[in-house]
Amino acid sequence: MSGMESFLVTPEDLKHHGHRTVDWVADYLSCLESYPVLATTAPGEIAAMLPRSAPEEPEPFDALLADVDRIVLPGTTHWQSPGFFGFFPASSSPPAILGELVTAGLAVNGMVWATSPACTEIETVMLDWLVELLGLPVGFRSDSLGGGVIQDSASSATLCALLAARERATRGGAALADLCVYASVEAHSSVQKGARVAGFCPANIRLIGTDEAFAMDLGALERAVRADRESGLVPCCFVATSGTTSSMGFDPVQAIGQLCREEQAWLHVDAAMAGSAAVCPELRSHHEGLELADSYAFNPHKWLLTNFDCDCFYVADRASLIDALSITPEYLRNDASESGAVIDYRDWQVPLGRRFRALKLWFVLRSYGGEGLRRHVREHVRLSRWFTGLVAADPRFELRAPPALNLTCFSHVGGDEVSEQLLSDLNASGRVFLSHTKLAGRYVIRCCIGGTWTAERHVEMLWRLIDELAPAL
Amino acid sequence: MSGMESFLVTPEDLKHHGHRTVDWVADYLSCLESYPVLATTAPGEIAAMLPRSAPEEPEPFDALLADVDRIVLPGTTHWQSPGFFGFFPASSSPPAILGELVTAGLAVNGMVWATSPACTEIETVMLDWLVELLGLPVGFRSDSLGGGVIQDSASSATLCALLAARERATRGGAALADLCVYASVEAHSSVQKGARVAGFCPANIRLIGTDEAFAMDLGALERAVRADRESGLVPCCFVATSGTTSSMGFDPVQAIGQLCREEQAWLHVDAAMAGSAAVCPELRSHHEGLELADSYAFNPHKWLLTNFDCDCFYVADRASLIDALSITPEYLRNDASESGAVIDYRDWQVPLGRRFRALKLWFVLRSYGGEGLRRHVREHVRLSRWFTGLVAADPRFELRAPPALNLTCFSHVGGDEVSEQLLSDLNASGRVFLSHTKLAGRYVIRCCIGGTWTAERHVEMLWRLIDELAPAL
Repeated sequence: MSGMESFLVTPEDLKHHGHRTVDWVADYLSCLESYPVLATTAPGEIAAMLPRSAPEEPEPFDALLADVDRIVLPGTTHWQSPGFFGFFPASSSPPAILGELVTAGLAVNGMVWATSPACTEIETVMLDWLVELLGLPVGFRSDSLGGGVIQDSASSATLCALLAARERATRGGAALADLCVYASVEAHSSVQKGARVAGFCPANIRLIGTDEAFAMDLGALERAVRADRESGLVPCCFVATSGTTSSMGFDPVQAIGQLCREEQAWLHVDAAMAGSAAVCPELRSHHEGLELADSYAFNPHKWLLTNFDCDCFYVADRASLIDALSITPEYLRNDASESGAVIDYRDWQVPLGRRFRALKLWFVLRSYGGEGLRRHVREHVRLSRWFTGLVAADPRFELRAPPALNLTCFSHVGGDEVSEQLLSDLNASGRVFLSHTKLAGRYVIRCCIGGTWTAERHVEMLWRLIDELAPAL
Repeated sequence: MSGMESFLVTPEDLKHHGHRTVDWVADYLSCLESYPVLATTAPGEIAAMLPRSAPEEPEPFDALLADVDRIVLPGTTHWQSPGFFGFFPASSSPPAILGELVTAGLAVNGMVWATSPACTEIETVMLDWLVELLGLPVGFRSDSLGGGVIQDSASSATLCALLAARERATRGGAALADLCVYASVEAHSSVQKGARVAGFCPANIRLIGTDEAFAMDLGALERAVRADRESGLVPCCFVATSGTTSSMGFDPVQAIGQLCREEQAWLHVDAAMAGSAAVCPELRSHHEGLELADSYAFNPHKWLLTNFDCDCFYVADRASLIDALSITPEYLRNDASESGAVIDYRDWQVPLGRRFRALKLWFVLRSYGGEGLRRHVREHVRLSRWFTGLVAADPRFELRAPPALNLTCFSHVGGDEVSEQLLSDLNASGRVFLSHTKLAGRYVIRCCIGGTWTAERHVEMLWRLIDELAPAL
């Protein structure tokens, strides 16, 4: 053994320390309820616990795990806590965790097919499996003109959709400065961000008003498109949201899609959170009109037991996406790519490098099976309906948006300050974490039920806390 | 226990299956040499081994690991093999693998400070540690106006630099259609891709010629800038490469930086591969002029024992980056962010969501220490010099670029076809994998030594193979 090898942490060390780390993770998941959900750390407190410089000498593994306990855990907002009802959940599960472990062990870079065929082909097949499992349009399957790819996030999926739309329009002769993007005021901030990143003129990003259900107002959209056409501008990309971030509103995809077709623009449908619900046939109403979409994204890392990062992004015409994103330097040329018989996913995303993210999805889909996934989603929907019923029946509260899937938006009838104080008190309890938004100008508390470990008793506990902390009328 | 909980894979299951998975990874790393480095799979072969649909019923964990052996391994190009000398390495190490495991177990989303203070603050401190360890300009430290952030890839870092440059120029009154980007013809393809993504006019992306060392030709750059100014265009962003992908060429950062300052343009320095070498003070010559850079990126996931994705991206003026990337919807507002006392890394990157990637970096820096990291890099540089000497001394071969750090570019004097055949034969041996490029119109074999498990005997084996397979004169 050379001098080089003797200094390395060996596979035997990995085995030894790895068992302890697995135990650590399992114990952490077993004790999730013992941690305050929201970190109570003050700014700079964690940084102050760390040395100013990297160590010169190697430190033992024990010291690392001890510091995860001592430094990381107290400074962590526990997204996996069953009391986490904030934002949207960050899905995780034992099979996904072990999938990540295998991915880290293999440490392949799947930038092109040849650099790891299994990484590419398992991804393609997983995305096809999901087309069937979720009842998505068959035009998104890889054996059609379309296909799916894993992006890190819905933000990146939206960006890719905008880039493909932009490329199609500019190749058609339009000037970038004339292209318009349409989404509702309730669309995720990543639409604005993506449009800015893609160089669309900020003045040409149209945020369309919504109706009382926080769905895009079709009349307002039509008027905006007409006005743009009259000004000589070019409608380029429509982003419809299925399940808005604030209130789980559903834009009328079918009608937007028809308008989009008339305008020969690109329709992207963002179902980041709600998309996973489609594993249940009874929760697919938002698919109506989806066959009109040029692209679609949803996040198994939100509600389908798969660790971040795992956004599934589908296009109906893969050539449009590749046209927008492909640049081939000599050092990446290879026979398989030239043959045209393989997919090189680097041309389906912005970065070149990519992790083997399909592996965790494979582990999850097989570990739970279609039945298990449906059971998972249905239970959260059931708990959410039950919770919504309790809120709606209590005169102290008012629902602020039509409850949908696993999200309840409500406020205290005493006004914004009372609602804000209630949320603050709930989160200060350490037992739950909920987040807020504003809807129609009102401060609104959001309760999203989607945690892997969230069961009935946790939602009961949440309701007891709310009941106790909310002031009487 | 509710019905919900009983169907889940439990923490106890995780413990049990996790130990087996750790053993699997350790055994895989112990047996790396037994696999053909480059996958020999035919297109579609892996996909054909998978069922057409997701299973309805849960499958046991045993079936998953068995299929990793049966389906994944034969279809994998083994980037961790000590015989992998292709492209640039995909760094990995036991501490990084276990860091990924803990990250997957915690499964937090560090989009803003409040959603996980430890995720943010450990990242800030790790990036500061690296400023010191690598001898980077202090203006990149978080206690200056600048700071560092982890991106998924150098591609994304370059894109962020281009976006910040673009934003600064357009806020200054320039039109996007007039902005020019400069990089050398040897710059990574992500510069062109990033500029396209960011909406720069494709006709305004200048790929400047290089000298005999494949470094940007300063005279040609000056002429291009002058011509653009005379045409009424605006130099916006210069990308200098420290260690080009094809041949590890180093652009003259100092001189480019001075020109860039005169033009009030943005200077991004891409040291994706070579940057890690700076852990060794004697391998920092490419830092000359770096204090003129507005941004800088290097990839610990290439040569610093840290699993992909881990690109370290530094800016000298964080406000410019945040101006380009920040959009704050109500649902992300929180007291800590409003106080200005914390960093919200979502404003330093394109996607919103982010994994706790700093954890693996923390594990690596502490497990190896500065001494271990230097030893790691120095050994590869030593082996590379030794290998280069063997190639240079053999009359069958010609070096095609000045050897630098851990890369040797050579070809057979018999011509391109002979070199191409030699590379094909080497890779067909299954014992090694090398990749190619073209330099000055010639087909060139690249040997990059940077694998975690690559030791002297593997480079000896590579040379024996080359010696045996290369035709005599």
